[in-house]
Amino acid sequence: MNRPLILISNDDGYAAGGIRQLIDMVRLMGDIVVVAPDGGRSGAAMSFTSSVPVNVRRVSEADGVQVFACTGTPCDCVKLACGQLLPRRPDLILAGINHGDNAAINVHYSGTMAIALEGAMKQIPAIGFSSQKLSADADFSALRPTVQQIVKSVLEKGLPRGVCLNVNYPDAESFKGIRLCRMGVGDWVNELERRTDPRGRTYYWVTGSFKSDDGHDESTDTWAMHNGYIAITPTQLDLTAYGAMDYLKDILLT
Amino acid sequence: MNRPLILISNDDGYAAGGIRQLIDMVRLMGDIVVVAPDGGRSGAAMSFTSSVPVNVRRVSEADGVQVFACTGTPCDCVKLACGQLLPRRPDLILAGINHGDNAAINVHYSGTMAIALEGAMKQIPAIGFSSQKLSADADFSALRPTVQQIVKSVLEKGLPRGVCLNVNYPDAESFKGIRLCRMGVGDWVNELERRTDPRGRTYYWVTGSFKSDDGHDESTDTWAMHNGYIAITPTQLDLTAYGAMDYLKDILLT
Repeated sequence: MNRPLILISNDDGYAAGGIRQLIDMVRLMGDIVVVAPDGGRSGAAMSFTSSVPVNVRRVSEADGVQVFACTGTPCDCVKLACGQLLPRRPDLILAGINHGDNAAINVHYSGTMAIALEGAMKQIPAIGFSSQKLSADADFSALRPTVQQIVKSVLEKGLPRGVCLNVNYPDAESFKGIRLCRMGVGDWVNELERRTDPRGRTYYWVTGSFKSDDGHDESTDTWAMHNGYIAITPTQLDLTAYGAMDYLKDILLT
Repeated sequence: MNRPLILISNDDGYAAGGIRQLIDMVRLMGDIVVVAPDGGRSGAAMSFTSSVPVNVRRVSEADGVQVFACTGTPCDCVKLACGQLLPRRPDLILAGINHGDNAAINVHYSGTMAIALEGAMKQIPAIGFSSQKLSADADFSALRPTVQQIVKSVLEKGLPRGVCLNVNYPDAESFKGIRLCRMGVGDWVNELERRTDPRGRTYYWVTGSFKSDDGHDESTDTWAMHNGYIAITPTQLDLTAYGAMDYLKDILLT
């Protein structure tokens, strides 16, 4: 029987510490191919490149791991891998380890989770791993046992159709356990920083800080992560607000 | 009482025919401010600009409608509008009219729906309007009565928290009616077109065609749109796959 084929990507770029450490954690669990952006793509969400072409180059092949660097977005990387570069359909897609968490509504902005959602779209099991540790030289070795455990379970058992996993680790060296969570809610505040350039013109940086609206709700990924747990949020493609149907029928169709 | 403040944006750029026609349809329903990209941003999804600053310039002010053009993404436009440009919190956010539909899973790639989801995140009622008509000079006048009807209902009654509307119009001059739908499923096929540049190097265009997996399921937006109905899909921020919790508890926590 063939070893599983595992595609790994990220949004911090192929050279980032997080993806390098993820490759090392799972390299014995299958045949690994890496197709990742050639630099940082934080906040790429599920964007794809439509106005210019995409280029890809083979960066290295060490210990049997092929690494391709792509000029496009995280979603472009998955499309390119599955459509052109991989010898066959992958058995699993992994994203990360992201330097920075993707809990709560931030999944919508996340290039890491875009990779996992792209996997779900293609009916390939997919997992995004993120850590609260932002530092470029973060040591993710404390994540190794549970990353391997989660990857092994998903490789063996699969995921329901249209569902991928969003795994967020606290900034800690040990964890209280794994919690299955719902996606937290909240919003960003102070999102624009207004500055003046040397010629007196106004410009803006998109920045800000996330404000959770979950309070002490222990069912959310935000709570779990901030309280020392590994938060796994099953994440689905289907955005239909089924619960709003009756209300909308009243206001729109009568 | 103040007239409602309506923010309008899109992903085809402030000069696109679709947004111009949308402005005209709703200009008597409130005070309108337009903050839109300075050019096309198709496939921008919920990306925001993190690596460079964002600039904005006032383009015109005619008949009381201020129009700002922004160098960033659709999400940047909403953040910039709500954080800096608008005199107060808007009562409604409209996106579109997009030249091209955003039915089914394509909501995930859509800059139009990113605007609406960004509104939902900020707890501001928001609606994305899209049409199957792709042409840059498409005539959307057949949409006017129902666009006005939907906008009026949402202005008066509001939307549930965390929910926005995805409205997709068929390529037609009259419609069989409005249907409340669920988001269709499917995937893109033949997503990469491989070419060779004049110097012999390979490059790729991200392209392809959408393949619906809904068959004849009449509950989906894909079906409604392809069968002459205006498809309204209530769309939520919450991506939690609640239905997968028991399965995942079995495979991950035992």
